Parts: sequence; C-alpha cells; structure tokens
Amino acid sequence: MTKLETLFDALWPITRSITGNGVRESLDIIDTNHLLTRYEIPTGTHVLDWVVPKEWNPRAAWIKGPNQEKILDFNNNNLHLLGYSCSVHKQVSLEELKSHLYVSEVVPHAIPYRTSYYEQRWGFCMSKDQYDLLDEGTYEVFIDASLTDGHMTIADYVKPGLLKDEVLFTSYLCHPSMANNELSGPLVLSQLMEHIHSLGETKYTYRFVIAPETIGAITYLDSQGKDLIEHVKAGFVLTCQGTSVPYTYKRSKRGDGLGDQVVENLLAQEEGSRIVDFYPFGSDERQYCSPGFNLPVGSLMRSVYLEYDAYHTSADNKDLISFDAMEEGIEFYKNVIFVLETNCKFVNLKPHGEPHLKKYALMDGLGARSDKGLLHKAIMYLLSYGEGSLSLLDLSNLSGLSYKVVYEAFALLRQKSLIKGI
Amino acid sequence: MTKLETLFDALWPITRSITGNGVRESLDIIDTNHLLTRYEIPTGTHVLDWVVPKEWNPRAAWIKGPNQEKILDFNNNNLHLLGYSCSVHKQVSLEELKSHLYVSEVVPHAIPYRTSYYEQRWGFCMSKDQYDLLDEGTYEVFIDASLTDGHMTIADYVKPGLLKDEVLFTSYLCHPSMANNELSGPLVLSQLMEHIHSLGETKYTYRFVIAPETIGAITYLDSQGKDLIEHVKAGFVLTCQGTSVPYTYKRSKRGDGLGDQVVENLLAQEEGSRIVDFYPFGSDERQYCSPGFNLPVGSLMRSVYLEYDAYHTSADNKDLISFDAMEEGIEFYKNVIFVLETNCKFVNLKPHGEPHLKKYALMDGLGARSDKGLLHKAIMYLLSYGEGSLSLLDLSNLSGLSYKVVYEAFALLRQKSLIKGI
Amino acid sequence: MTKLETLFDALWPITRSITGNGVRESLDIIDTNHLLTRYEIPTGTHVLDWVVPKEWNPRAAWIKGPNQEKILDFNNNNLHLLGYSCSVHKQVSLEELKSHLYVSEVVPHAIPYRTSYYEQRWGFCMSKDQYDLLDEGTYEVFIDASLTDGHMTIADYVKPGLLKDEVLFTSYLCHPSMANNELSGPLVLSQLMEHIHSLGETKYTYRFVIAPETIGAITYLDSQGKDLIEHVKAGFVLTCQGTSVPYTYKRSKRGDGLGDQVVENLLAQEEGSRIVDFYPFGSDERQYCSPGFNLPVGSLMRSVYLEYDAYHTSADNKDLISFDAMEEGIEFYKNVIFVLETNCKFVNLKPHGEPHLKKYALMDGLGARSDKGLLHKAIMYLLSYGEGSLSLLDLSNLSGLSYKVVYEAFALLRQKSLIKGI
Repeated sequence: MTKLETLFDALWPITRSITGNGVRESLDIIDTNHLLTRYEIPTGTHVLDWVVPKEWNPRAAWIKGPNQEKILDFNNNNLHLLGYSCSVHKQVSLEELKSHLYVSEVVPHAIPYRTSYYEQRWGFCMSKDQYDLLDEGTYEVFIDASLTDGHMTIADYVKPGLLKDEVLFTSYLCHPSMANNELSGPLVLSQLMEHIHSLGETKYTYRFVIAPETIGAITYLDSQGKDLIEHVKAGFVLTCQGTSVPYTYKRSKRGDGLGDQVVENLLAQEEGSRIVDFYPFGSDERQYCSPGFNLPVGSLMRSVYLEYDAYHTSADNKDLISFDAMEEGIEFYKNVIFVLETNCKFVNLKPHGEPHLKKYALMDGLGARSDKGLLHKAIMYLLSYGEGSLSLLDLSNLSGLSYKVVYEAFALLRQKSLIKGI
Repeated sequence: MTKLETLFDALWPITRSITGNGVRESLDIIDTNHLLTRYEIPTGTHVLDWVVPKEWNPRAAWIKGPNQEKILDFNNNNLHLLGYSCSVHKQVSLEELKSHLYVSEVVPHAIPYRTSYYEQRWGFCMSKDQYDLLDEGTYEVFIDASLTDGHMTIADYVKPGLLKDEVLFTSYLCHPSMANNELSGPLVLSQLMEHIHSLGETKYTYRFVIAPETIGAITYLDSQGKDLIEHVKAGFVLTCQGTSVPYTYKRSKRGDGLGDQVVENLLAQEEGSRIVDFYPFGSDERQYCSPGFNLPVGSLMRSVYLEYDAYHTSADNKDLISFDAMEEGIEFYKNVIFVLETNCKFVNLKPHGEPHLKKYALMDGLGARSDKGLLHKAIMYLLSYGEGSLSLLDLSNLSGLSYKVVYEAFALLRQKSLIKGI
Repeated sequence: MTKLETLFDALWPITRSITGNGVRESLDIIDTNHLLTRYEIPTGTHVLDWVVPKEWNPRAAWIKGPNQEKILDFNNNNLHLLGYSCSVHKQVSLEELKSHLYVSEVVPHAIPYRTSYYEQRWGFCMSKDQYDLLDEGTYEVFIDASLTDGHMTIADYVKPGLLKDEVLFTSYLCHPSMANNELSGPLVLSQLMEHIHSLGETKYTYRFVIAPETIGAITYLDSQGKDLIEHVKAGFVLTCQGTSVPYTYKRSKRGDGLGDQVVENLLAQEEGSRIVDFYPFGSDERQYCSPGFNLPVGSLMRSVYLEYDAYHTSADNKDLISFDAMEEGIEFYKNVIFVLETNCKFVNLKPHGEPHLKKYALMDGLGARSDKGLLHKAIMYLLSYGEGSLSLLDLSNLSGLSYKVVYEAFALLRQKSLIKGI
C-alpha cells in the first residue's frame, strides 16, 4: 500500500468539522514529520467580519423507526449527522422528523453533506432512497454532541528561502468522510510540504497553511494578511486532487500572477486540460482573492467542486478516487516549484548572427534534413530570442517547447558561455 | 388594435419625400403629445456641403396603355412615381417609356423605390413582371407634381437631465409607403420619446431628432453639430425595427462608445444576435460618424438595410413586419436607458474576506450544494470584484450575469451597507 | 521558352557550393544587366563568430563496383558528391564504403543533398534504392576536388531612393542542382532587381543581396550590419518560390514590421495562404533576425523548406516547379513594392457630413439599391475614416477592400480635392 493510501485510510473514518478533535487527530496523522505549527483560536475571537464559533464534538446520533429498530446511525457513516447539530432526544412524528432530514436530489442513493454552523438546529442526512421509504409512525431521535466554548485549530509551516518572496500552498480540513473534496487536498499538501522540507536552499520562501475552510482562511488572513500581501508571489488552494479526469486550472482573480503563468505553461503539455477564469464560488481562493487582499492565488483541480454529482455526498468516497492521480498531482506541483526556482531571463552572449555551433560541438555539421530533435530546437530558440527581455518560461510559451527542454538547452548553452541568465 | 398598429395604419398611405406636406402630416400623427419642435428650412439654404432642394408635392401620376386604359396609377401605390419626378404629359413610344421606367431585378413582383432628388427627371417604377408584359404601341404618361421654393421640415425634442451629457435618438422620415425601412423607426422613436417624457428627473439629457434621411441629418448637424460633439455620450439611429429576426447591432465608428457598451452587454442575453463593426453605408450614422463629428452613434436593427430582398420595394409592407417585434425593440431601448441611468462603479465596504452573509440574512447557512440562484451569484461577484475599478456593467460582462440581476444584487448590498456606488 | 525557364536551364547543371567557381558562373548568368557588385572574401577572414573556409572546386567523382563498372558518377548528377568532400582514390570494402554513403529515408528513390563544410570528410550521396542493392565486394572510389586558400563570392545591388530608408531583398546561391530550394529564389530576385532598376525615382532605397546561405549572410552582416540596422524598414528572404501551392508567409521576428504588414494585407486576398510566426530554423532570416541585428526580415514561400518531402534531394527538380508560379511571385512582390511606394496617411478635406457626391460626379443619384461596386465602397470608407490617423493600408485592412481599389479611390478623391495624402 502506498504512503498516500495508508494516510487516506487513517484519515477517512475521522469526524471532522470546522472545530473539534477531529481536526486535531487529522493533523496528527498528516504531519508525520512534525513540520506544522498549530494555533488554537478561542471561541468568540473576532476575525475580520466573523466570530470563531463554539467547539463542536459529536458523540452519538441515531434514529429508531416505529418498530424500535435503528434505521440510521452516525457510527455507520458520520455524514448522517447534520454538521454542528445540537443534541436532542425525543419522540417525533414522521412529519416533524422530515423537517429535520436532508437528502440529495442529484444522487438519490447517497447521503448528502450538510451543516448549520451559525444557527442552532438538529438534523440528520440520509439518502433520498431511504427517505422515500419511511413509514408513518413515531420515531425516536437521539443526538449527543457537545457545543461549548473551546478552540478552532489551524496550522502552518514556513520554509524560508533566499528571497522573502513567498509561494503559498493552502488546503482545508473540516469535512467528515469525503475523498476528492476534501481528503485529496490535505494529502497532496502534506507530500509537497515534505518535498520542500527535503530540498536544500530554495530561492523562494514556501508557506503551507492548513485550516478549516472559509472561517479558517479568514482567521489566518486576519492575522497574517498584511504580510501575505507584501510577500506572496504565487499561491494555490489544494483541493479536488483525487480523480483521474484532466486538470482544470482556476486562475487567480488577477489572472496573470506568477503561479497562473507557470501552471498555464505546464498545462499546455497536458491534453484535455482547461483553464478557467476566477469566479467567486468554490473554496478559500474566495478569501485570499477578496478585494482587501487580492493575492495571486489560483487552484488546480481534477473533478471540480460543484461540477461533479458526488460532490458533498457519501458518493465522494474511495471508489471515486485514484492514488495514482494524486501522485501525478504531487509531481505536477513539483514541476511548478522547479519552474519557479529556475526560471530567469536570458541573454545571448554572441548575439550577432548565429554562433558557429559546430565549433561548440552543438551540431553534427552534416547538413542532414532530419529533425534535429527538441533540444536542438530549444538551442536555436534561445539564441534567436536571447535579447534579454524574455524569460525561459516566456520562451517555452512562444516556442511551444516544454519548459523542461528549454531549461536543458539553457543549461547547455550556459555551460558553453553562449547564454547567461539575468 | 395596438397603438403602434393604429399609428402605422395612419402613416402608411401618406406620400413622403425629403420635403413636402407628407412629412408634415406624418409628424402630426406621430407626435400625439406635441413634444416635438419643428424647423422649416428654406429651399436654397446651404448646409455643410449641400443645398436644401426645392419642395416637392406630387398630386397625380398615371400611365395609359395603347388601349387607353390606365396600366399604373400613383393613387394605387405611391411607389409608382419616381421620387422628385417633374411633371409631364405626353404620348410616348414603348421605347421612350422604358427609358423612364425603373424595376427591381431582385424582387420581380415588387415595385422598387427610386428617387432623383438632385437631377430633374420624370419617371415611374413598376414591377419587373409588369414591365416584361408591356405591349408595343403608344403610351400616354401624366405626372402632376409641384417643385417650387418652399421648405424642408425637421423636428426635435430635448428633455434636460441632471447632466448636460446627452443620449441621442434619431430616425428619418422621408420614404413613401414602406414598413420596416422606414416606418418602424419613427414609430419606435415616438414611443421612446413618450417614455422619456413620462419619466421624472433623469441623469442624462435625452435628445430625439426626426428628419429626412441624409439631407435632414446634414442640416441638423450643420446647426447643432458643435453642441452635439460636446455633449452626446451615446446615440442611436432608429431604423429597421420592424421584423422578427434577431438583432444586429452596428457599432459606432469609434466602436467603444457608452452606447456600444450598453447594447453589447444587453445583446449578450439575446440568442442569435450579432454585432458588426461600423461601415460607411446605411443610414444617418454616416453623417453622425463623419470625421468632423465622429459622434458615438450606432444602430440596432432587425432586418438590415441592403441585406433583405424586400428592402426599398413595395414588398417592405405590413405583411413583412411584426408589431410585437417593435414592442420588443421599445422594451430593449428602455433597458438601454435603465442601464445608462443606473450604471456606476461600486466598492465593497467590507473588503477583507467575505462578509459573514448569514449575519445580513443574505444566505440560508445550511451549506446546500444546490444552485444558490443568480441573485446569490451576483452578490458574490459584487463583493469579490468590489475594488472600485469596475462598473456594474463591467461586472455583468465579466460574470455573464444579466445587468438586471447585477443591479438587483447591488441594490440589496447597498441597502445592507456592504457595497456603495461611486 | 520564357526568360525564367531559359535562365533556369542555364543555371541548373552548374555545381555550386558556398565557395568556388560555380557561384561565379551562376552570378554571370543571373546578372544579365550587370547590376551586381561582387565581393571576393579571402579564405580565413573572420566574420562574426565564423571563419571563411577554403575554396572548394570539385572536378570528378565516381564509384566503380566489384565488377569494375561505374555505379555512380558526379557527371550524371552533382548531388552524388558530398559537398566539400576531400579527394580520395582507393579500394574499399562495402562496409567501409557504406560509412561514406548518405541516403534519404524519406524519398528512397532520390539522391539526398549533404555537405561537410567545416570538417574534412569524403563521401557520396545515393538513393536508398541503389544503396539497398549494393553487392558485397571491393569498390573503387575516386574523388578529385581542390580545397585551397581562395575566396568566397557575394554580391549586392543598391538603388538609392528619395529616402535612406531601405527595402532589402536577399537570396542565397550555394546549392547544386535543386529547383524550388534553391534556384527559384535567385531567379525571382534577378527579375525584381531588373524591375526596380527600370523604375524611375523611388521613395525607398532598394538593396538586393545574393550570397551563400548562412556564411554569406553572416559575412554581409559583418560588414554592412550596422548600416542595415539603421536603414532597413522591410526585408525579405527570397526562397522556395517555385511550386504552385498557396503562399506561406513567415513573419519577421519582430512580427509587425512594415514588410510584414504589407504582405499580410496582400495575402488577405489570396485564398489558402497562411501566415506563421517567425521560428529560428530555415534560411537567412535566422541571421538577419539574430538578436544583434533583429532586422524586420520575413519570408514569403510556396513549398516551405523542411516541410516538403523533396526538400534537399534530387526530387527537387524541374518537374516539381512551375514557371507561372514564379511569375506570380514576381508579380506579388511588385505589388508589395507598389504598396510600399504609394501608401500614406490620408485626410478628408470635407470632413463634416458626407460631401454631396453627386456634385463631384461620384455617384449617379438615382438611389438604386444595387451594389455600387467596390470603388464606391472604397470612396465611402476613405471619406468616413479620413481623420488623418489611418493609412491606405490600414483602411484596406479595416474595410476588407483590396489595397488596389483603395488606392484607386484615393487617387480619384485626391483629384476632386476631397482627400489629401499626408
């Protein structure tokens, strides 16, 4: 079993919400190398336009039918309990029960994921199929959950680089058992964090943030926002990394941030991928790109929130996802980091006419018609466009050659003293 | 019968030309509320590069065939008489007659509309079908028309607004019995004029001009052009409003005028509509957009002049048009006026992160996946893009949401003190 | 037989290389009017990053098979000899022979064109078909070629114009018997040179350069580059003019040079033509557009180097080409020159409203619906857009009308004092 799958299986059964012990246990699992710093924010703390809510910890929840048998139990699937539901224990008619039940019309066989963080309600979620078969009669409902002054948990890890300029990776941790949205995000983040930690000196400073969605991002921005405005040059919300469908990149609101440029360049080599402009629904890019911060934060996804049927239901489970796809996602982000670390402008040191490449052992000199290969093409592009105004990334875009081969040619020409980076 | 149809039926039989009593009678009918100021311009007046011609008033015109029976009579269809034809009464051979006959090759069964304003000729128009059956023999031709020093009639109405900035609506009145081009234009103009008159205080000053095509616009520009250059911020030539085909918007020559922007935004919601760049054939936009004035004047049309077969023939009649389509056109222009009056830049007053919408009763707080509806989307877009640089119209373009829903959300957020217009 | 074909037939059998008598003989043939100035550059001269090589003059080359019969003879096809091959005379095994043979995998029946200018080798080129049938046994190889200190020959012709601003036409002369690439290029250049010579006073200075590919362009730029940077406003590499396929225009590296603009305008009227951005493979535009010079030099081609199978083989011969296509190419470039010489900005001298065209005998005044023809359209466009900011070329692009009709209308309006060039 791969490391990703082992982590996934450990995280899956935990009941998470925007507060509570589920988040803390999950962070224990993800942060195998103890890189994260945790912050416990007290209930009642004012953060931007919001207030940190009470801490919620559910213990049990079930419904017994008219025949006294349990028809639904939180222990079987933690999605059955409305998030932040208050406690209850009483007999109710079917009619009253139904006013506390939530179903998914889109996927009738699945349990939907619903919450009521900021208004006290009790409730259960069940499949539409089950709901439709409920008999008339008296039901017994039982929910045991504490909602008390406590804390909300958020965490970050910063690896300083040569520059104070920062690259931000953020993901959220607040959903109960769901796979693509959400576990894929924290899993990919954890592996990238370890990768960055394993690197030697880097050009950029790298920052990893993991927090409950929305309220967590708002809390982080409340305290760190000013610094982030000053330093973040590229950022990514890690979410919806789990399936095998082609990538969708959602641009930052600015649309032309450094991260946008790098991802769009790399996606040009990924068949079927698409790039969409920012829109103000989705995940924490809503907060990072809000007018007061407007950070260059985008999001690369597979199956996109709100766009796939299983989203926010029990159908978003291990069957839906692919650990290979997550490995590809990690690889993709490593390439993003490689581009960020190596990209520079370049200048041809023999700019008048072509250098006599034969002299530098850079061509065979037999005038063959055959395709000289991508490396030769990249050499010719670098020499021809080496006026000092383009970066390697620009040249990759202009030539259609991959950044990888452009960089390889650059390194070769630099070694021959024909090109230098500036 | 609708008001539009009643007006149409009253206007239809009148013989109009660029001068003469037909124009005056038509203005009497259109201007039911006596809003228009009329100007009578004497024959011989120099206007820009032109001279106002003599006034023409036809009384009778017919042709008798070799057997002494009338084969064509102006009383049956006023298109039979060449516009501005001089008087004649004589016997002519078929050959001589034919040199004074005009036909349409495109629509052989229809009578074409032809004129000779600036060179004295006599002539008749008939269907190609009739022309082809003319027998050899002697014909008697009779035309009784006065062409004397007189006046050309033009008219306008100006409703002052809070700003001196003006919105111009202009149409022409100089064609005999034709429906899409021309009666639809003055009819729509008359209703918009009454709508503006009925409004209370407006932001913009609104100007309505009705005049013979070309020479009328030239005359109006000769006297008012300097003021119009200073004040007109958006303008529209009203013509070809009569049929049910999708809209074509012909941009002003500048291409990015305020009126262009508003119409293009509204057309984005109209399936099948198209937008074309300015071209220097067509109607009075040729004069308004000439280099010396270059006003931001475009034209929204249905069946476009020169592009439909019936154009400038007797086939452009009541059968071709739809009064419902004209009502839609009036509605469309009312929406243009609504956008012009309400559009503004906006700024988010809680720009750091999303405001906690639940607090403001702007969302239900149950985290449902279901489409939150267009109003919710518009709220999210306004908050996210409320940096002060975009207008409501810009946001409608950016989001793909209609201006109407964007404005509705804006009004709601303004009421909650979350957004203000600037 | 046309002049082009006569010249072609005379040039075809000559063995050319980057140095040697073949180039001199070819220039004698091409330059019938003795317009060119020749320059003989000594072996060993340093030019930019290169050195002029020794002069090569082959005299004989053959291979005798195991049965003593010649299986290949340079006298039958000069492509059989590897360009710049050194002399050899010896008995070799089939295995050794094969290490000195070059074939084309793409066109197995054709002899490929291969060279080894900058590394001493001996070798032969033959068809893959022949190669595959070679018997085991001993072969006798014989090559007699001199490689001695001598000269490389390049040539130019400059016709001064009213302006020092220059238009550059360049082609190369260094390939043995090949038709589309290369003879079509020098042939078209020779006829354009005579055309320019025959013109009276021109606005632009015209420069024609003919030199061996790559090393010749580098040598020319070494001595003239600084002047060219200052003066060249448009330039074209003449090559691949021989076939009947639609045009491909390869832009200069800048992409928006004057020459690029003119060619793109004219190609808009040529069905099937395509425009591609600069890329750093191909011909001498690589040198002219290198970062140190970056001249606005593009290239209009038919069958493009590297893109057609016969390229650089014996299949690129008289059967592949069309002299009519070359005549069309000459005509196309004459049109380019016409645009360069006549294009100017224009201003409407009666800018307020339309001039009364009837007064100037510029329309019939009968209000006919019929297409007034392209000339009338061009008149209307010139008047409408005559604000002084657009050139005739801009207007042709904007209107979709050909430059020719726009210029014709301009000349007519200028004669009527309604428009002037500025």
